Amino acid sequence: MKKPHSSTLVLFITMLVFNFNALGQGDSPDPLPSWNSGRTKSAIIHYVSEVTNADSEYFIPIIDRVATFDNDGNLWSEKPAYFQLFFAIDRVKAMAHDHPEWKKEQPFKAVLEDDMEELIKQGEHGLLKLIMASHAGVTVEEFESIVKEWLATARHPRFNKPYNALVYQPMLELLNFLRDNDFKTYIVSGGGIEFMRPCVEGVYGIPRDQVVGSSGVMEFDYNNGKPVIRKLPEIDFINDKGGKPVGIYRFIGRKPVFASGNSDGDLQMMQYTASNKYKSFMLYVHHTDSEREWAYDRESHIGRLDKGLDEAQKHGWTVIDMKKDWKVIYPFELDK
Amino acid sequence: MKKPHSSTLVLFITMLVFNFNALGQGDSPDPLPSWNSGRTKSAIIHYVSEVTNADSEYFIPIIDRVATFDNDGNLWSEKPAYFQLFFAIDRVKAMAHDHPEWKKEQPFKAVLEDDMEELIKQGEHGLLKLIMASHAGVTVEEFESIVKEWLATARHPRFNKPYNALVYQPMLELLNFLRDNDFKTYIVSGGGIEFMRPCVEGVYGIPRDQVVGSSGVMEFDYNNGKPVIRKLPEIDFINDKGGKPVGIYRFIGRKPVFASGNSDGDLQMMQYTASNKYKSFMLYVHHTDSEREWAYDRESHIGRLDKGLDEAQKHGWTVIDMKKDWKVIYPFELDK
Repeated sequence: MKKPHSSTLVLFITMLVFNFNALGQGDSPDPLPSWNSGRTKSAIIHYVSEVTNADSEYFIPIIDRVATFDNDGNLWSEKPAYFQLFFAIDRVKAMAHDHPEWKKEQPFKAVLEDDMEELIKQGEHGLLKLIMASHAGVTVEEFESIVKEWLATARHPRFNKPYNALVYQPMLELLNFLRDNDFKTYIVSGGGIEFMRPCVEGVYGIPRDQVVGSSGVMEFDYNNGKPVIRKLPEIDFINDKGGKPVGIYRFIGRKPVFASGNSDGDLQMMQYTASNKYKSFMLYVHHTDSEREWAYDRESHIGRLDKGLDEAQKHGWTVIDMKKDWKVIYPFELDK
Repeated sequence: MKKPHSSTLVLFITMLVFNFNALGQGDSPDPLPSWNSGRTKSAIIHYVSEVTNADSEYFIPIIDRVATFDNDGNLWSEKPAYFQLFFAIDRVKAMAHDHPEWKKEQPFKAVLEDDMEELIKQGEHGLLKLIMASHAGVTVEEFESIVKEWLATARHPRFNKPYNALVYQPMLELLNFLRDNDFKTYIVSGGGIEFMRPCVEGVYGIPRDQVVGSSGVMEFDYNNGKPVIRKLPEIDFINDKGGKPVGIYRFIGRKPVFASGNSDGDLQMMQYTASNKYKSFMLYVHHTDSEREWAYDRESHIGRLDKGLDEAQKHGWTVIDMKKDWKVIYPFELDK
């Protein structure tokens, strides 16, 4: 029984080093300053130190250090509704004067009447119709300008901040910590690729070509010497549930060793990552903080974490208890 | 008229520097040693030196230095037929004993009877059927093993070398030269992503997540705790012609400043690149060397370059004359 012994030893050494640094006497500062000490933080630091140690049996070559992160509810908030839905709603309102028929047609009627209850009743089909109408009919450049303009002006209803101010400070630190250890970090989200890119650029340190997401059909038009790519009102690929491993394989071409998500939509990504031949790390964010953020799991319409929570417990995956594990939630709390 | 003047001056200085280096007195060696001196080589070096010079009006920030390369006929040969077609043929032969019906069914009958003429008569529909049958029904890991095994054993009919030995030495140098100047290099090919990745890995210096190509539909299967991604016999996306700019936008998210191709299938990528707000470089490989490689253009079934050649002339894009511009074609010629 050499394995448990040696990994216990490494954990012990890691904790020693960690305490040493905490005393301010080490030369490397705490890589995760917004995380409270405890099992979650130790497990992350232990894993990273183990798989990046060339002498460890769990060493992972740099090329295989692929880390995938869900976005909504995992890197930024997703309440009271997905931020992309707020964008779609604002966009429908802005487009409404060209569409008088929307006053009588659902789900647009609900949007124009600010009737969120009715909008939710329209279900998945209604939301899809909303996304189509609000995300298509423009070139990709026009769409990007629209998203940027929205980001610059729209404010989150609870915090009255730009939506991309509501990213999780501890996760920003985790992304940096992984990159400092030669992991390549990707977003793998059910959100739309073209919506996410302008939102996250300059926030997460993840370049555009490392954003995997859902996408609509696009067409190229030479347009008499002014080539454009136009977004069409048709879904091409939904990067959620079983779509996540497929999206990962298509865009990245490697199985992740580190996966982080917060809902049942991430479960297949977790299972796929858990099947890696290398030692892998599965990390669920559990929303337990109704004061600083939100508390929800098994019963939530958005970001439901039910089966995933059972599987995490069953397989010993790491679950972040937001309330206990995170000193701060958002970067703006650090300014206080 | 300041522009032509200043760019002529830069060209002059570039050529001076180049000659200086050629005399062996500079400290940087010729970045493109397999390219003969002349207009093509000078144009490439001039462009790169101009757009990477922070004092130039044509300076391009590193983040926007995206260079996209077609694969077949551009980075490696594509004659007497696309290498992926040879793979499909070999695979169909290997699978034939499980498919007795193929003896009577086209295009399989033609493959099993080595009747290339009949196979070509089966047209695009026949080829698609062949690709489907030979590329699906397995997991992505199984498929990758099959491709690697094929690469290790199959030999090109004319050169009797592994197919990925038939890459173009001058293009390898160009890829390195661009990367040395902080361009990010991508493959953007009509070939299948999953076929290309194992073929090009370790050859071009282009990582897996920078390979954009055609793809089939895939499905995730949890498979009782052994998760797999299975390739289904259905085309998802054809990354050719107008598909190339769309694939570029979806995977990369930026318009290239440098595009290199060799056929009319690359024309839309060229047009898209030419519309960049930054100074861009469009490079066509013209197959003019019937002795060392092949000579073909307007009339070729594979890699036809007809409209693209006209457009290149019309817009002043750079066209490589393979016979004149390249000292060697393949890396193995250097060993002689």
